[in-house]
Amino acid sequence: MPTVAVVYHSDYGHTKVVAESIARGAGGVDGVEAVLIAVDELPAPGPDRVLGGRWPELDAADAIIFGSPTYMGTVSAAFKRFMESSGGIWYRQGWKDKLAAGFTNAGGLSGDKLSTLLDLALFASQHSMIWVSQGLFYDDEGINRMGSWIGMMAQSTDDPPEVTPPPEDHKTAELFGERVAHATLRWARGGGRR
Amino acid sequence: MPTVAVVYHSDYGHTKVVAESIARGAGGVDGVEAVLIAVDELPAPGPDRVLGGRWPELDAADAIIFGSPTYMGTVSAAFKRFMESSGGIWYRQGWKDKLAAGFTNAGGLSGDKLSTLLDLALFASQHSMIWVSQGLFYDDEGINRMGSWIGMMAQSTDDPPEVTPPPEDHKTAELFGERVAHATLRWARGGGRR
Amino acid sequence: MPTVAVVYHSDYGHTKVVAESIARGAGGVDGVEAVLIAVDELPAPGPDRVLGGRWPELDAADAIIFGSPTYMGTVSAAFKRFMESSGGIWYRQGWKDKLAAGFTNAGGLSGDKLSTLLDLALFASQHSMIWVSQGLFYDDEGINRMGSWIGMMAQSTDDPPEVTPPPEDHKTAELFGERVAHATLRWARGGGRR
Amino acid sequence: MPTVAVVYHSDYGHTKVVAESIARGAGGVDGVEAVLIAVDELPAPGPDRVLGGRWPELDAADAIIFGSPTYMGTVSAAFKRFMESSGGIWYRQGWKDKLAAGFTNAGGLSGDKLSTLLDLALFASQHSMIWVSQGLFYDDEGINRMGSWIGMMAQSTDDPPEVTPPPEDHKTAELFGERVAHATLRWARGGGRR
Repeated sequence: MPTVAVVYHSDYGHTKVVAESIARGAGGVDGVEAVLIAVDELPAPGPDRVLGGRWPELDAADAIIFGSPTYMGTVSAAFKRFMESSGGIWYRQGWKDKLAAGFTNAGGLSGDKLSTLLDLALFASQHSMIWVSQGLFYDDEGINRMGSWIGMMAQSTDDPPEVTPPPEDHKTAELFGERVAHATLRWARGGGRR
Repeated sequence: MPTVAVVYHSDYGHTKVVAESIARGAGGVDGVEAVLIAVDELPAPGPDRVLGGRWPELDAADAIIFGSPTYMGTVSAAFKRFMESSGGIWYRQGWKDKLAAGFTNAGGLSGDKLSTLLDLALFASQHSMIWVSQGLFYDDEGINRMGSWIGMMAQSTDDPPEVTPPPEDHKTAELFGERVAHATLRWARGGGRR
Repeated sequence: MPTVAVVYHSDYGHTKVVAESIARGAGGVDGVEAVLIAVDELPAPGPDRVLGGRWPELDAADAIIFGSPTYMGTVSAAFKRFMESSGGIWYRQGWKDKLAAGFTNAGGLSGDKLSTLLDLALFASQHSMIWVSQGLFYDDEGINRMGSWIGMMAQSTDDPPEVTPPPEDHKTAELFGERVAHATLRWARGGGRR
Repeated sequence: MPTVAVVYHSDYGHTKVVAESIARGAGGVDGVEAVLIAVDELPAPGPDRVLGGRWPELDAADAIIFGSPTYMGTVSAAFKRFMESSGGIWYRQGWKDKLAAGFTNAGGLSGDKLSTLLDLALFASQHSMIWVSQGLFYDDEGINRMGSWIGMMAQSTDDPPEVTPPPEDHKTAELFGERVAHATLRWARGGGRR
């Protein structure tokens, strides 16, 4: 069954709850399995270059949705560490032609969140992946409240992750997960897989 | 038959010859038709908002590869005019789920070419398209000579387009066209089209 | 007297009123003159390469603040046309060491406005200018409401420019103009000018 | 005496030798002191939020030139860790109105190096710093060989840092350091400092 992995880093839980909404959206699509992986579960390769922890699970996914908070204008250092740990996979282009997508959360309305999404798209492109845009037009219910396009943006206050980002962002996240799941199914079917 | 359109602007011919190589690569793939469209053939909408010229042909494509020279750090004004003419299509999300890809040419090795590719990827994302990365690892023959990932980069001197960009860039362009064509076939098959 | 020029493009007037607020802020600083120039007043060079209209005025400024709406993910085609018309100045690096800054307006909260600001910063850098960041921390009164840093962001609805963007954005614009004016004075003094 | 700090991360030494050339250029300007600081000398704040190591030295600089290799499309995780450690300084805007500039090194000609420079410019802007562009036109001697503008780019092979990046890049780095030093002097004079 085609699998969508959501890989995220979260210090305070706000990015984590968005990741959960995306995974819920993706996993709700018939015929798709969603897995949620925190970057802490993806240790750096050891001297033998073997990637342990949940790396094999990630490596087996058909699509990977990358998510990081925006700190000081780009992905977090913890998320960047994960990106660098994928260097061996990059070198053999092991993720070539998988689908990819990205999301981020920050306190500001702009908050340089776009820079994080662009960095995620460049990262996925170095891996020769195919990038699925957010694909949700803004509406009066607050879907795509941020006016984001290349990936999904949530925006939270300093309140706890139980109450922020707001429900509109969670709904956007869920629909975004659904969209990536449908693309994953179509891409798998086109490649002769079910 | 799935169609790949290559839409480009070129003042001096350097971006045009790269567009031609990409179209040759795409059109060489069995079961794919490639069409080459200059932005001059895509007039701005009139007062009735109807898009004439070759717009209907572009609109019918399964995948669109966007190409512009990099002038002063981003796409050319002529290419930008085309982007803005697509505003009505954007508003009804008429290109949603089509494939997209991008390329650029400039004189400098970096030359801010990456900025043009990012602007093309953002543009395609506003249209909710799916972005196909360049997907070519660099090698000793000069394939992906520029070390580009999110799209294809060529680099030319002030010499005429018959001699520059160099053959390596044309070869890269051709392989890039092939890659987008294969992705287009797979995406069309997955969607139930042949 | 050191001069700050605000060069902008505006189709519907929303970017224009922001430009006016910035110019008001800059011109309100003792010892600084602010001039407001629309890109329509900066015609493309003729066959003799001479730049007429208000180009000489722009060329004489100590600092230039660039402003464009964000359309389809970057600066407008009309603004880009102006950028390209500056190619001769670029080639002789005539604006080297002038100060520069940038602003944009769009309908979305993110709305890819950051991409426009980055494109303006790259453009100014090609001219070897020195870039003045927005320099305003967000506060409870709505200053820097957008959470923008590299330049100033306003956000407007479809209502007329008399009522949108909101007063907070105009106040932010004014303070931003002030900041650039103070930097211009300091830079002029440091260079031995008064 | 006005001080220019060069803060860098380097795993294999290639970014380090570029940092050294920049510091040499900056320090060679009469009346300017250059200091070279590796991010390893800038430990993360402890529970008391005090920044030890060489942080006070960095904090006292009039201009900071940031340098990181480009890994997987942006700054290294180690450099990003340093960026995040500056969060307390950011919150009180302690670096407001200092000058800033940036450089990077990577193996590819483009190699997404521009993305790193943009991330550094955004970072400096969050700190409300003033950004000094590279300011060197390309020439036949290989100055600004990369065709970079917003910051300085070097490009190295897998050979040791004694032989790569090539001498042209070191010369470019030196001139870039000189430029930032001159700007620092002018900015300090304008602010009433000598």
